[in-house]
Amino acid sequence: MAKKNAVYAQSGGVTPVINASAYGVLVAAQHSDAIAMVFAGYDGINGVLEEKLIDLSQEAPEALAALRHTPAGAFGSARRKLQDVEKDKAAFQRILDVFAAHDVQYFFYNGGNDSMDTVTKLSQFAKAQSFPLQVIGIPKTIDNDLPITDCCPGFGSVAKYNAVSMMEGALDTESMHRDSTKVFVLETMGRHAGWIAAATGLAHRTERDGPHLILLPEVKFDQARFLEALENNVRKLGYCAVTVSEGVQDHEGKFLSEAGGQDAFGHTQLGGAGNYIQELIKRETKLKVHGAVLDYCQRSARHVASTVDVIQAIECGKRAVELATRGGTGRMVTIVREQDSPYTWSLSHTDAANIANKEKMLPEDYIREDGFHVTEGFRNYCLPLIQGEDYPPYEQGLPAYARLKKALAPQKLAPYKK
Amino acid sequence: MAKKNAVYAQSGGVTPVINASAYGVLVAAQHSDAIAMVFAGYDGINGVLEEKLIDLSQEAPEALAALRHTPAGAFGSARRKLQDVEKDKAAFQRILDVFAAHDVQYFFYNGGNDSMDTVTKLSQFAKAQSFPLQVIGIPKTIDNDLPITDCCPGFGSVAKYNAVSMMEGALDTESMHRDSTKVFVLETMGRHAGWIAAATGLAHRTERDGPHLILLPEVKFDQARFLEALENNVRKLGYCAVTVSEGVQDHEGKFLSEAGGQDAFGHTQLGGAGNYIQELIKRETKLKVHGAVLDYCQRSARHVASTVDVIQAIECGKRAVELATRGGTGRMVTIVREQDSPYTWSLSHTDAANIANKEKMLPEDYIREDGFHVTEGFRNYCLPLIQGEDYPPYEQGLPAYARLKKALAPQKLAPYKK
Repeated sequence: MAKKNAVYAQSGGVTPVINASAYGVLVAAQHSDAIAMVFAGYDGINGVLEEKLIDLSQEAPEALAALRHTPAGAFGSARRKLQDVEKDKAAFQRILDVFAAHDVQYFFYNGGNDSMDTVTKLSQFAKAQSFPLQVIGIPKTIDNDLPITDCCPGFGSVAKYNAVSMMEGALDTESMHRDSTKVFVLETMGRHAGWIAAATGLAHRTERDGPHLILLPEVKFDQARFLEALENNVRKLGYCAVTVSEGVQDHEGKFLSEAGGQDAFGHTQLGGAGNYIQELIKRETKLKVHGAVLDYCQRSARHVASTVDVIQAIECGKRAVELATRGGTGRMVTIVREQDSPYTWSLSHTDAANIANKEKMLPEDYIREDGFHVTEGFRNYCLPLIQGEDYPPYEQGLPAYARLKKALAPQKLAPYKK
Repeated sequence: MAKKNAVYAQSGGVTPVINASAYGVLVAAQHSDAIAMVFAGYDGINGVLEEKLIDLSQEAPEALAALRHTPAGAFGSARRKLQDVEKDKAAFQRILDVFAAHDVQYFFYNGGNDSMDTVTKLSQFAKAQSFPLQVIGIPKTIDNDLPITDCCPGFGSVAKYNAVSMMEGALDTESMHRDSTKVFVLETMGRHAGWIAAATGLAHRTERDGPHLILLPEVKFDQARFLEALENNVRKLGYCAVTVSEGVQDHEGKFLSEAGGQDAFGHTQLGGAGNYIQELIKRETKLKVHGAVLDYCQRSARHVASTVDVIQAIECGKRAVELATRGGTGRMVTIVREQDSPYTWSLSHTDAANIANKEKMLPEDYIREDGFHVTEGFRNYCLPLIQGEDYPPYEQGLPAYARLKKALAPQKLAPYKK
């Protein structure tokens, strides 16, 4: 069988381990009898459409090896989502044209639910055109909100980083509370699902440890009950550490970050849910508050990654190559939990259409009855995912993250007009 | 010589390595012929005044050993500053009464410039009363703003954490900038001196690496020049990563965080300097912005501490014991740089009065001529301080930080009335 080329592209918000999946693809492709060269989309699907294909054979082997421990999207990612085939036929056709021009038969798309929609549509479009193409999705999202797969590469590391950050911020507040700050607020990512916010709950191992309260997007925010719980905590311990998901909503389903709260001076308030909660506490309780918003630092915090997460990310990349070279298409690799303790897992795969455009929320039995914390069930689910510390190598005191040349393969087609 | 007891107390904002200095004191005290028991002030000087002395002989040896890698103030810290002796004589007398009741001759005060004021005054007060007391200051501040000492324990680790966080946040922004966020803003601590903000500059090793711009408290904020530099960067690279010190001031010397800026909708703006800069960029450039405020997470980020910093913190604690048991008083341990590369250092000491109430700003020759970045001179100064990764041990996926019992020594005096 003549070898064919492969394209790998990153999609959506990046993670601490998305490049580890790229590394898995590369390693497996090198050992495959079916794959000749691997290209990467420059800025994700944009690079595919524009025939900007990064030629990975021109990168230093050490730089490619360093993908294993490099956060963010080393080739560039994209927020661009393809429409339905009927509406966006030119885009789908263009992708096949680019693939034909570069002898590409394998396409690995590393993303979340939007990307799996593209995997499905592109795979169907190629079939309809009798174009030989294997399209395989590799799961990726810090939000952990893809259905079917037990967890998503990226989540475990972000969960670990946020739990560690909460531990440290809460210890700080505890040690200063006597005559300084009484409340510490940590805002986490997770616009719709509360998995990341919930994960900080792992740090609460004794009554003293934060977080003492967690505000989840799955639980409508009840101001009076929250303030009561907060003040009880401050009365009991002298301080309180609160995790707030950026996606917390009020009773009308409006994000707190858009709820137009007012500060202590009657000014309309801006910023995210964390700021909202801080201002609310200042106004209603007069307690001294500090807050952290880790923002992108959490999404790319590779310096404290979970070993389990890194390995799953790599293995998902490898398995995608195996699926594709055996003729699979329109599928996404999934992670299957075999047991909680000791944690064992394996890989499987599912129709990408089962993933596309769906979100997996935190189930009810993972949320404590009062809505302000997680249950033992959640701990059993989440704890295995943050195990192990996969540290990057350091150079001169800072992580030695990969820096790619991103040399493009020569273009063969006319420029893309969209 | 009959052994006497010692008291150790933490003061001011905590750090990732202040407990490492406590560990140094304990280790040296155990090996000293002069010291019997070591007590720790419960919530710093408050515990001394209130005769709440934590009896460290009741702690598990493993918990005390874990102080070496535990962030924040394990015994509690305090913002309370003693007044002049004339104004606050009762407080000074009370401290001597508590020390007399517990046979204490050695007092180790781990803090910054306010604390060294107390070291000086207490030492003089004891001398005037002919009370045998050795008071030694152990330097501590993430702000790195103490004079005379080359650097301050706490700064190296916070510098490293912030530089790593900037690296990661900037990589994230770079990988997403094509159709998402163009500007990333990281707010760092440092209300008066720009050492921490400057340290993020270590991550800028090539043109592509953030931070591309650093806003320091030592340089008055010039909005027009800043926005021009920002837009130039976005034009050149497609994105821009900006570090903002919380202490940045406008031309009138007003903190940006209090400057009453307005957001894109004309709302008066709240929050810190980072929020201010984010809103300014949104309003004036329409570029998509994200921002992180690490807040206390940076001050207690022990999970990525600098080995050099940890060792200096421990050694400062040990040296304090040596100084005290040789009869020193009113002194603070200092760190002396012998050479930059390879970095070598030693310890010395100075009159605590030389440190008290003084702040060491970033010198002019560490600030790039345009005011938006650091110089090679700063890099040579700072780089040695972030070397080495002193990771804490982990248990079940999270750092195994010390949790002390904090059992108090039996009280012997009437309650303190203030």
